[in-house]
Amino acid sequence: MFRTALRQCARRSAFPTPTAVASRASRHYASSTSSFQWEDPLQAKSLLTDEELAISDMAERYCQEQLQPRVLQAYRDENYDRAILSEMGELGLLGPTIKGYGCAGVSTVAGGLITKAVEQVDSGYRSSMSVQSSLVMGPISDFGTPEQKEKYLPQLAQGNMVGCFGLTEPNHGSDPGSMETVAKPHPTKSGYYSISGAKTWITNSPIADLLVVWAKLDGKIRGFLIERKDCPAGTLETPALKNKNGLRASITGMIQLDNCPVPKANMFPEVIGLKGPFTCLNSARYGIAMGVMGALEDCIDRARTYALERIQFKGNPLAKYQLIQKKLADAVTDASYGTLAAIQVGRLKDDGKSTPEMISLIKRQNCDRALHHSRVLQEIFGGNAVSDEYHIGRHVANLFVTQTYEGQSDIHALILGRAITGIQAFA
Amino acid sequence: MFRTALRQCARRSAFPTPTAVASRASRHYASSTSSFQWEDPLQAKSLLTDEELAISDMAERYCQEQLQPRVLQAYRDENYDRAILSEMGELGLLGPTIKGYGCAGVSTVAGGLITKAVEQVDSGYRSSMSVQSSLVMGPISDFGTPEQKEKYLPQLAQGNMVGCFGLTEPNHGSDPGSMETVAKPHPTKSGYYSISGAKTWITNSPIADLLVVWAKLDGKIRGFLIERKDCPAGTLETPALKNKNGLRASITGMIQLDNCPVPKANMFPEVIGLKGPFTCLNSARYGIAMGVMGALEDCIDRARTYALERIQFKGNPLAKYQLIQKKLADAVTDASYGTLAAIQVGRLKDDGKSTPEMISLIKRQNCDRALHHSRVLQEIFGGNAVSDEYHIGRHVANLFVTQTYEGQSDIHALILGRAITGIQAFA
Amino acid sequence: MFRTALRQCARRSAFPTPTAVASRASRHYASSTSSFQWEDPLQAKSLLTDEELAISDMAERYCQEQLQPRVLQAYRDENYDRAILSEMGELGLLGPTIKGYGCAGVSTVAGGLITKAVEQVDSGYRSSMSVQSSLVMGPISDFGTPEQKEKYLPQLAQGNMVGCFGLTEPNHGSDPGSMETVAKPHPTKSGYYSISGAKTWITNSPIADLLVVWAKLDGKIRGFLIERKDCPAGTLETPALKNKNGLRASITGMIQLDNCPVPKANMFPEVIGLKGPFTCLNSARYGIAMGVMGALEDCIDRARTYALERIQFKGNPLAKYQLIQKKLADAVTDASYGTLAAIQVGRLKDDGKSTPEMISLIKRQNCDRALHHSRVLQEIFGGNAVSDEYHIGRHVANLFVTQTYEGQSDIHALILGRAITGIQAFA
Amino acid sequence: MFRTALRQCARRSAFPTPTAVASRASRHYASSTSSFQWEDPLQAKSLLTDEELAISDMAERYCQEQLQPRVLQAYRDENYDRAILSEMGELGLLGPTIKGYGCAGVSTVAGGLITKAVEQVDSGYRSSMSVQSSLVMGPISDFGTPEQKEKYLPQLAQGNMVGCFGLTEPNHGSDPGSMETVAKPHPTKSGYYSISGAKTWITNSPIADLLVVWAKLDGKIRGFLIERKDCPAGTLETPALKNKNGLRASITGMIQLDNCPVPKANMFPEVIGLKGPFTCLNSARYGIAMGVMGALEDCIDRARTYALERIQFKGNPLAKYQLIQKKLADAVTDASYGTLAAIQVGRLKDDGKSTPEMISLIKRQNCDRALHHSRVLQEIFGGNAVSDEYHIGRHVANLFVTQTYEGQSDIHALILGRAITGIQAFA
Repeated sequence: MFRTALRQCARRSAFPTPTAVASRASRHYASSTSSFQWEDPLQAKSLLTDEELAISDMAERYCQEQLQPRVLQAYRDENYDRAILSEMGELGLLGPTIKGYGCAGVSTVAGGLITKAVEQVDSGYRSSMSVQSSLVMGPISDFGTPEQKEKYLPQLAQGNMVGCFGLTEPNHGSDPGSMETVAKPHPTKSGYYSISGAKTWITNSPIADLLVVWAKLDGKIRGFLIERKDCPAGTLETPALKNKNGLRASITGMIQLDNCPVPKANMFPEVIGLKGPFTCLNSARYGIAMGVMGALEDCIDRARTYALERIQFKGNPLAKYQLIQKKLADAVTDASYGTLAAIQVGRLKDDGKSTPEMISLIKRQNCDRALHHSRVLQEIFGGNAVSDEYHIGRHVANLFVTQTYEGQSDIHALILGRAITGIQAFA
Repeated sequence: MFRTALRQCARRSAFPTPTAVASRASRHYASSTSSFQWEDPLQAKSLLTDEELAISDMAERYCQEQLQPRVLQAYRDENYDRAILSEMGELGLLGPTIKGYGCAGVSTVAGGLITKAVEQVDSGYRSSMSVQSSLVMGPISDFGTPEQKEKYLPQLAQGNMVGCFGLTEPNHGSDPGSMETVAKPHPTKSGYYSISGAKTWITNSPIADLLVVWAKLDGKIRGFLIERKDCPAGTLETPALKNKNGLRASITGMIQLDNCPVPKANMFPEVIGLKGPFTCLNSARYGIAMGVMGALEDCIDRARTYALERIQFKGNPLAKYQLIQKKLADAVTDASYGTLAAIQVGRLKDDGKSTPEMISLIKRQNCDRALHHSRVLQEIFGGNAVSDEYHIGRHVANLFVTQTYEGQSDIHALILGRAITGIQAFA
Repeated sequence: MFRTALRQCARRSAFPTPTAVASRASRHYASSTSSFQWEDPLQAKSLLTDEELAISDMAERYCQEQLQPRVLQAYRDENYDRAILSEMGELGLLGPTIKGYGCAGVSTVAGGLITKAVEQVDSGYRSSMSVQSSLVMGPISDFGTPEQKEKYLPQLAQGNMVGCFGLTEPNHGSDPGSMETVAKPHPTKSGYYSISGAKTWITNSPIADLLVVWAKLDGKIRGFLIERKDCPAGTLETPALKNKNGLRASITGMIQLDNCPVPKANMFPEVIGLKGPFTCLNSARYGIAMGVMGALEDCIDRARTYALERIQFKGNPLAKYQLIQKKLADAVTDASYGTLAAIQVGRLKDDGKSTPEMISLIKRQNCDRALHHSRVLQEIFGGNAVSDEYHIGRHVANLFVTQTYEGQSDIHALILGRAITGIQAFA
Repeated sequence: MFRTALRQCARRSAFPTPTAVASRASRHYASSTSSFQWEDPLQAKSLLTDEELAISDMAERYCQEQLQPRVLQAYRDENYDRAILSEMGELGLLGPTIKGYGCAGVSTVAGGLITKAVEQVDSGYRSSMSVQSSLVMGPISDFGTPEQKEKYLPQLAQGNMVGCFGLTEPNHGSDPGSMETVAKPHPTKSGYYSISGAKTWITNSPIADLLVVWAKLDGKIRGFLIERKDCPAGTLETPALKNKNGLRASITGMIQLDNCPVPKANMFPEVIGLKGPFTCLNSARYGIAMGVMGALEDCIDRARTYALERIQFKGNPLAKYQLIQKKLADAVTDASYGTLAAIQVGRLKDDGKSTPEMISLIKRQNCDRALHHSRVLQEIFGGNAVSDEYHIGRHVANLFVTQTYEGQSDIHALILGRAITGIQAFA
């Protein structure tokens, strides 16, 4: 299905629509000379394959044409449009690096470019997609039985089913090893486990059809696939967490399990301990590392445009001021560095040479820098920044969450510190 | 009326109510020894008079008891409760440094402590109050005719009338000298000016009864008092600006004037040019400089409490981690410095020794540091920071606006740069 | 003797010498209006007594006239002129806050202003003086017997004797409680202790006549006064530590004690444990907190002058550029805040209301900010910064050491963190 | 000759010498698994060719074995050993990217790896080499006549001749277009120009045999090759600039030309204007961008070792503390990003796709980050940092100069700002 979308996209490219959105999406290819391009200052695109460029272009086109127009209202209303996952499924954007089961089987970098295109619009949209791809389809692909794969991957890939990932608990954020959710043989239903516990800050949980839940069985962490439709009333609740101050275009909730019966066949058969969730998180974090560069690039684009169009003091555009130019130069620099690093780690990942610490490094750095620069660029908008119609305030609020979730920046610093020194300093 | 409130407050102090709110408000006085107090590390309170301490205590008590409980919902709904100004009026908190006309006539520092107490709850609440006190009552007191003072100051002081301040225009933020709003003799109504133009980002404008508007008359900037009730239909519109990403507990709008007739007696008689609005802004900025220290202190308080209560890794509270302690130490340091500086400038102001550059200096520094530290402290909350119930996200969003309005940080840097070097670098 | 100097200085003031140095020293008093003065933006001087102003003026005059001309060569040669302590003694600058014994008995703030005046020239010169005043005369005054005071304080106050302070050991920098230097009853000399151990990074040690040494007696830390002239050959060595990359205008060395006999009468009689050395350090740190503001002010002064005189691009002085003005504005702001905070803590100290944490707070912040801004200001000099004749490189190198010694910045952060949270996080 | 050295190096690798230096140089290859390596966290080495790896290894070996042992004394004495250029010439390290004329003709990245290996020891050594390679051999190769190339390149490549590059003038640092040095037809010597003017901060000038000097001929900037041996007495002086506070292991001086006669054949025939010097600087800046990563890596290595070996508080190494680990993690992150970016730009350069703005970007960022982290890592050494034997203070001082020379950081920010916005903001 991906190749279909790709082909369509190629066809569409042949007849460029002369809209602003289209020109935005295709702007990167405007120049073939080796002039400096602020959108890609170190020509990271030269490191991509033709397929990757086409995927990136297609994804960007979809996001600018289909997601950008609805994000403002979605964010205001704190509302996630379930249809988006179906659209993404149709384009082959879900679980894109998985081979088979209706997935596109593209490179890690290509997968990253999809997250980047989505996050150029909104980190919440990207989060929702990341959960589906990396945290639900990922572990099924990595740890699932053939039956689990056959049953769920195609449905998830098409966006027919929505998944969520239950690891974090109310009292255990950075420290999932202390989780309190427990699975035990079901007291009455043979061939079933009974799971009880609570998970929180779970993206997609209120609308999820399939919940990947991590729980302790005999004291050891195991992964379970819970289908909402099979849960007896009262055993599964997924209340939404509202009034968030970031990622409002994605939906977040809790997972409350009260002796929820789960078929034994729905447990991942072999993976035990934190290796399971951490493998998924590693993949999701890669997507974040690349994705936030998209949000940062959008901030740069918008700030630059504003600085060129806003006139102050004697008819000069803001862009003429040194203090403004420095903000732009700083942001462009870190955006270009972060993208190169993400591509490099993607290549290493496909070569089997990446390590979790590398992911920690780029997830942390790219989130930190994207957040920092989005805030600095926001200053360019002056008083107008307070209006959500300039979008940058939304990016700022979102990027703070990306810095915080899937390993807060300081946690990754200590992971790196341990790798550098051989000494752990968590406690 | 202020003295009444003050007396009441003194009486209440004699019978301390054992509630959490009360204990919070009175906590500062818990210790009489010279131990280190993180809430006031350099004992700025030792620089205050007994009256100032009592005012601060009274204001803090009101804010914690009356404002804190409603701010969360107000912020969610982007709704400002008009009654707040009446309550503040009743307590004598409006225009507190003005002498006579029902105003309390307290010191500049005392006025600052009131803004600080309010901003400890919310910068939007403080903004609304600052506009009333510094930007509406201030210029009437400084530049008004005796009749203008008599007519408006008591009503404003009691909160019976709400005022707003129209200076910024859509195309002129940091550069008000280029304003386009114009006053001219009214073509048909004798003894009236006719004013046309648009102002934007005007706090309180949608609910204002009295609008201080700056417009050019014969090319020179003059100030006018516009009473909404006297404006013919269609000559004054004040549409609200919604969907703000900060200061949502205050109400903001535009002022659209279309040949609005204003009695000649409603112009400030003598002040000409930017001196008028800048004098008011100077006073408002002082309030901001002190006020944001309140917001920062609330962030510190909340982050400290969270760090002490949140347990991670082997049963340790977050507060045990070096990276957390450093964030707290850094924030506490700048909070203490900023408060000292604001007190110093307040004293100089009352002695007639302050200059606008001093206000620029403390407004800029205190806003910058409050914003910076609120963001860093927000990290302590990890994923939970995204929930508005922890309040810190609200402070972060608000403080960004305070850094931006009434002189964006960089503008004040250039004001200081000019004062330091004798060379202007605005363009 | 101090009053003599003061009187002389007053006389000299009556006949101002029209030299550059004099105009520099007296520049602060040029204006009596309330205009903004970049040298003292928040009018910290308004908080000083007439005596303090006179002392500050006198000290600044001495430093600019007598120290500034020799610092460049001293720094190049890594050479400290022993005569400086005598000159300072003659002016009453040593141990100035001590009452009696030939000391001036001035306020803590006045003492701080002296260190600031000296550090305006060089942090090394200030270090040497701080050791004499705070770390040698201080503990004798605080903990000494009447005999010890009578014998040593006058000699030290006049600069006839040079003192040093031996606490830090090669393996115990931030952790003096683990010291290894030991005192025990002398095996052969009755009425004597025998002290063995090594101290390092000891300012003044190679030229010291009197060494305050902290050592463990029966496992408890005690203070001893060791006179070099009384030490048998081979029991005391004080080799200089050369090739320093900062504080090169002060002399630093080790103290090596090998069964050194010390009369029992030379031990401080009552103070036991870290309270002794920490009391002295507290006092010295106060001097640093105020002192580094002097170095920062000198950096500002030099950078400003350079920026005004250096012409680039179309005949504009560097001072016209926004990026330059921002550097100056930032530095001036922190200089003014740091000075206010130091004055406040000085007042609290004299009132018996200061705590060690307050000193940690201002020592850390003022050193951190002085170092940071000196580095940023150094950028203004471009390639010329590499020449020592612009002096700013020397300040940068010195200020790094001030951030590091007497409690590295992070250590003070943890001291503050402990005071804020009630939890210690040192290990 | 390069291949000889390379072959030797290959032979030596076959029999690893068990010395500390050797183990350091070869440490990078210790592990063949995909574990995280703090020395190369994102496996930048995987992007290098075998030849590049061998060159890097050879250069690192030479630098660690031959340069490291003499740098401390050289820096103390502010003395540059002329023999170093001969040694480098023998190994083929000079002008390595030039094809022919006895030069190795390696890739831009390989050339960068050589500068990185040298700068791992000292930025001054690298500066001296960069001048010879990029600023003297570079323009001769790019702009020279065949005769100029034949005459000078082999001598320079072997280190038989030392070159220097005269562009910066006392009053024109960031603004070379305003240079005052002038060439005109020699009044008495036919076939000669007469050049007069002064250049300053010229690396190698006091020992240079061949001086590339830029001067205005008929108002247009042209490049001249001046051989010292041919200059009549009194027409060329190259006094050393002493007492530098950085880059003390390189020699710096002025070039003073007083009607110096230069054969017309010694002018570059075609290049006119700033294009000439800027092309060379572009190449030199590339070397700096890669080189400073070497200095940063050495700082990381030394700080990590110190943190592991230094024991404080309850027997813990400093490396166990969170605040220390964060410093290391931050530095390692930027080192890995900076290296990737430099490799990318090197590849683009060889493909003819690089632009000066890209070089500005990586020169600025890598210098800024190297400087920043060297300073933060220096804090780890506490009081010991002041001793030059820990080397990190030297790197800190050097790196400040690298941030400043060949385009101060802010200048490059404005170059980038211009490229991003299309508006120049230099004045």
